[in-house]
Amino acid sequence: MMSATDIALARISGMGRWAPDARGRLQKAAWELFTERGFEATTVADIAARAGTTERTFFRHFDDKREVLFSGAEVFEDSFVSAVLHAPKSAAPLEAVAAGLGAAAAFLEQGQDMPRRRQAIIAANPELQERELKKLASLSAAVADALRMRGIADSAAVLTAEIGVTVFKVSFERWLSDRDHKTLSALVAESLDELSELTGSVSSGRR
Amino acid sequence: MMSATDIALARISGMGRWAPDARGRLQKAAWELFTERGFEATTVADIAARAGTTERTFFRHFDDKREVLFSGAEVFEDSFVSAVLHAPKSAAPLEAVAAGLGAAAAFLEQGQDMPRRRQAIIAANPELQERELKKLASLSAAVADALRMRGIADSAAVLTAEIGVTVFKVSFERWLSDRDHKTLSALVAESLDELSELTGSVSSGRR
Repeated sequence: MMSATDIALARISGMGRWAPDARGRLQKAAWELFTERGFEATTVADIAARAGTTERTFFRHFDDKREVLFSGAEVFEDSFVSAVLHAPKSAAPLEAVAAGLGAAAAFLEQGQDMPRRRQAIIAANPELQERELKKLASLSAAVADALRMRGIADSAAVLTAEIGVTVFKVSFERWLSDRDHKTLSALVAESLDELSELTGSVSSGRR
Repeated sequence: MMSATDIALARISGMGRWAPDARGRLQKAAWELFTERGFEATTVADIAARAGTTERTFFRHFDDKREVLFSGAEVFEDSFVSAVLHAPKSAAPLEAVAAGLGAAAAFLEQGQDMPRRRQAIIAANPELQERELKKLASLSAAVADALRMRGIADSAAVLTAEIGVTVFKVSFERWLSDRDHKTLSALVAESLDELSELTGSVSSGRR
């Protein structure tokens, strides 16, 4: 039987199925080792050994050990972008992005402690941090594309997408360090409200 | 005599002086070669040869060829952060950040076509792009620190700083691709206004 954490890992890694197959075992082994020894000190051979597979099997599923941490990013991005695309037609641009943020938050919450563990691994390695920043840039571009498909003008689409990804980043960081154990969805909603207050105070100050 | 462009280059590179010294010559040579041949195909030996110096002289001024492109980033960051710190005490958090954005825009405008040339070099190289993203992350952290020093609560400081850097990023990209030849300052002001409209439409939609 898989534990609740294993199921969450399977979901967040985008396996899309339940069985503890080689890919799932490799991923679980890699995360354990990254956490225990650090990313750099872990070799593909170590991962394969702990998962009870060969290195060859590892390379059938992943290009390198870095990809173990990032292969779920496409599923995450899809959940965000798809909610933006399918928001009601009447939704304003930032409302469509808020729908995307809600879907992305729900996706990560399914993963229970996995997003936190993943983040701890990434935070310990500058190369992984740079990769993570690039993934956020790619997410922003994908959200801007979705907004354009909703008929939003190009420059507004880019600004709204960038603001949305920024709200996500800030909310996610708050979630990682939150001691009140609020849900990520609640923290996203809080950040969106704070954003309105921030910009509201400036425009009223100007007029 | 230095041309206007050379002076701008000297300023943007943070040389802090006017004379075409070795550092300035190396920087000019490096930028020319990066533009002509690309960043990867340019060696430190090439740069030193074009500047009429030795490689040893190069390494007295820069750790590596990448640093030629990024050594001005601290001066840029300082101009942004210092304006945030010195905004009127009555300024709301986002108004202080808007002051920072104005100073940063004015700093880059002094550089005439240099920021555009620099960006073209960076856009052609994934490693440089990752470095640039990290510099923006560091700028955001510095702006958040400045807001904390103004007495803003931690989480609001982080959100406001991230939003400010996002507005900068979007405005700068607009500036690079702008065919109407607006100033960067004007584009920053436009983006801030659009931000207010974006968030205004959501809060009125909710209430």
